[in-house]
Amino acid sequence: MKTLTACLLAATALTMAVPALAQFSKPENAIKYRQSAMFMMAQDFGRVAGMASGRIPFDAKVAADSAAVAELMSKLPWAGFGPGTDLGKTKARPEIWTNKAKFDDYARKMQAEMGQLAVAAKSGNLDSIKLAVKATGAACESCHDDFQEN
Amino acid sequence: MKTLTACLLAATALTMAVPALAQFSKPENAIKYRQSAMFMMAQDFGRVAGMASGRIPFDAKVAADSAAVAELMSKLPWAGFGPGTDLGKTKARPEIWTNKAKFDDYARKMQAEMGQLAVAAKSGNLDSIKLAVKATGAACESCHDDFQEN
Repeated sequence: MKTLTACLLAATALTMAVPALAQFSKPENAIKYRQSAMFMMAQDFGRVAGMASGRIPFDAKVAADSAAVAELMSKLPWAGFGPGTDLGKTKARPEIWTNKAKFDDYARKMQAEMGQLAVAAKSGNLDSIKLAVKATGAACESCHDDFQEN
Repeated sequence: MKTLTACLLAATALTMAVPALAQFSKPENAIKYRQSAMFMMAQDFGRVAGMASGRIPFDAKVAADSAAVAELMSKLPWAGFGPGTDLGKTKARPEIWTNKAKFDDYARKMQAEMGQLAVAAKSGNLDSIKLAVKATGAACESCHDDFQEN
């Protein structure tokens, strides 16, 4: 997993949506793809956040591994927000497509924070992890506040 | 994405389940986590398979990017097959837990084939991709035949 962690931290080539991946056979699959990435990210991030809050006993390796996967996941949902994916079973607000620049800024910010969290988790310093979890959680929340239906 | 592709191919440390990640707040989340990873893998693998069959126009970069993500996804579902995740909304057969050695062998085989597919896709050689898609699809199918409810 160390290799993966190091790799993800170095995978600067994959920042923001990968248009190349934005090819789904139907909108439903694109929606489910982004929701799957968000769910997995939430599980991995939530594990680290749980350690930061003391709800889960701190385990440096688990934190580093989880943050590494969460960072990768943070790069994958965006391909699922293509044209025609604003309808159907989704909590995505229309503003994602009408104010895409703002949405993309939030998305970039969240990925940057998740990357910082992965760095902090790799360092094994719980105080650094707590700070990064707070910043990352805020980045998630600000975007959900503006672009996700409750 | 090149960096990520290279990294994933080098991420040999993450083969099979990552026990460190096998920590979910409830079984439902573990089940949804493995289903999410499988779905994303199916989308990325399916895109490459579609190119191999001619259903989707061949795009070397899309194929390489998709195969790279599919390879990473192939490493992530296993943490979601922990104890107590055999019930609930799942098509996973009880044999996964009663015959875990066989299930793990299938899982390892699939990951190895998906890794070979990522190598083939990175090479950009469509004939190599076709062979790897066939072998990978067979690995998916053999496990689903034995361990997944229809």
